Amino acid sequence: MSSAPLADLAARLRAFAKERDWDQFHSPKNLAMALVGEAGELAAEFQWLTEAQSQSLDETQLARVRAESADVLNYLVRLADKLGFDLIAAANEKIDVNERRYPAEKVRGSSKKYTDY
Amino acid sequence: MSSAPLADLAARLRAFAKERDWDQFHSPKNLAMALVGEAGELAAEFQWLTEAQSQSLDETQLARVRAESADVLNYLVRLADKLGFDLIAAANEKIDVNERRYPAEKVRGSSKKYTDY
Amino acid sequence: MSSAPLADLAARLRAFAKERDWDQFHSPKNLAMALVGEAGELAAEFQWLTEAQSQSLDETQLARVRAESADVLNYLVRLADKLGFDLIAAANEKIDVNERRYPAEKVRGSSKKYTDY
Amino acid sequence: MSSAPLADLAARLRAFAKERDWDQFHSPKNLAMALVGEAGELAAEFQWLTEAQSQSLDETQLARVRAESADVLNYLVRLADKLGFDLIAAANEKIDVNERRYPAEKVRGSSKKYTDY
Repeated sequence: MSSAPLADLAARLRAFAKERDWDQFHSPKNLAMALVGEAGELAAEFQWLTEAQSQSLDETQLARVRAESADVLNYLVRLADKLGFDLIAAANEKIDVNERRYPAEKVRGSSKKYTDY
Repeated sequence: MSSAPLADLAARLRAFAKERDWDQFHSPKNLAMALVGEAGELAAEFQWLTEAQSQSLDETQLARVRAESADVLNYLVRLADKLGFDLIAAANEKIDVNERRYPAEKVRGSSKKYTDY
Repeated sequence: MSSAPLADLAARLRAFAKERDWDQFHSPKNLAMALVGEAGELAAEFQWLTEAQSQSLDETQLARVRAESADVLNYLVRLADKLGFDLIAAANEKIDVNERRYPAEKVRGSSKKYTDY
Repeated sequence: MSSAPLADLAARLRAFAKERDWDQFHSPKNLAMALVGEAGELAAEFQWLTEAQSQSLDETQLARVRAESADVLNYLVRLADKLGFDLIAAANEKIDVNERRYPAEKVRGSSKKYTDY
């Protein structure tokens, strides 16, 4: 219920694949591969920008980043749908883990203290 | 409103970064870079599996895929939050585009007809 | 001396960047980001192919894979050149490490026994 | 002949896989997937560094970047070996193409003028 927007997306993507008989290509392995390809395109949007420039994208740049982000989300939702897990629950659990793993008082202001979160 | 679960995630991630004074590291450029790193870890979970094996993961494998997927979603949500766009709307617009771009009757059953969706 | 072909590539890429005044964009961070973007494009060439199909690419597919592989190599050579290390030596040392880490008699035929090499 | 160091690497990697009976896992699709995973790990080394910091890595950071770069090269060499193309020739041809595509006088100093090279 609380994940309704992602559940709606999953349903649309399921119908999209079914109508095109593309479900045969959507093994979890292939979806993960497609996802990392899209993530690479997303990264490529930023590769020659400074960090400061990445914080003030022009309209065209933002539209491209938005579209690539959408591709990543769609493959991620499709993957979770195929494997039957709840993305929102997974994301919240990961934050729970990271809150314990990176106590604020110990890691404050240091990027050395974490490699991911 | 309809994006409530992602808005909740975004708020948690914002607080998480703020408490650790990590916001300084979270330029859109850096977040995109972190995201593709996590997407690479997600892909790595599947690299030696056959497509069939990827469809019947054991409990350990599924837990790892779920955790890597969570990392990807968290960075994606954080990126969209930083850049001020609605991920759910972006994802739905992308599906709209793809429905026009890949008419079912023309591409049915062919992976050659699309490179992404 | 033994790395001559890569040294030649590095020199060409250095001149290429210098003539275009692009050296300013080629921080190791940016080069790594560009590299993973190209690696994503390389992966995307294979995303809807079966493993068997990936072993018998047609001429067009092979040309694309070859071009994307070239992009990856060029960024990798540029990165190593910027950071001053010998890629060939690094690659051989990694194989040395993996020969000890994955003794043939222990891991034979099992993909579970390794996640990378 | 001129590609000897890469040919030597390819031969070592071929023997490494054969002794472990891992050749069965090394379809071009799987190798491309493994490669992008390693490229993601390489990018991750830089994700929280500024561009300036990425230019003056400490010894530990450099060792990690070197090792990840080696992983990328090894998978790239293995992929090219499997598909039967010459990486050095491919890389040089790509530079030829880019010299024509990005004339120095037209693109000098502008990152907008290129998205890859």
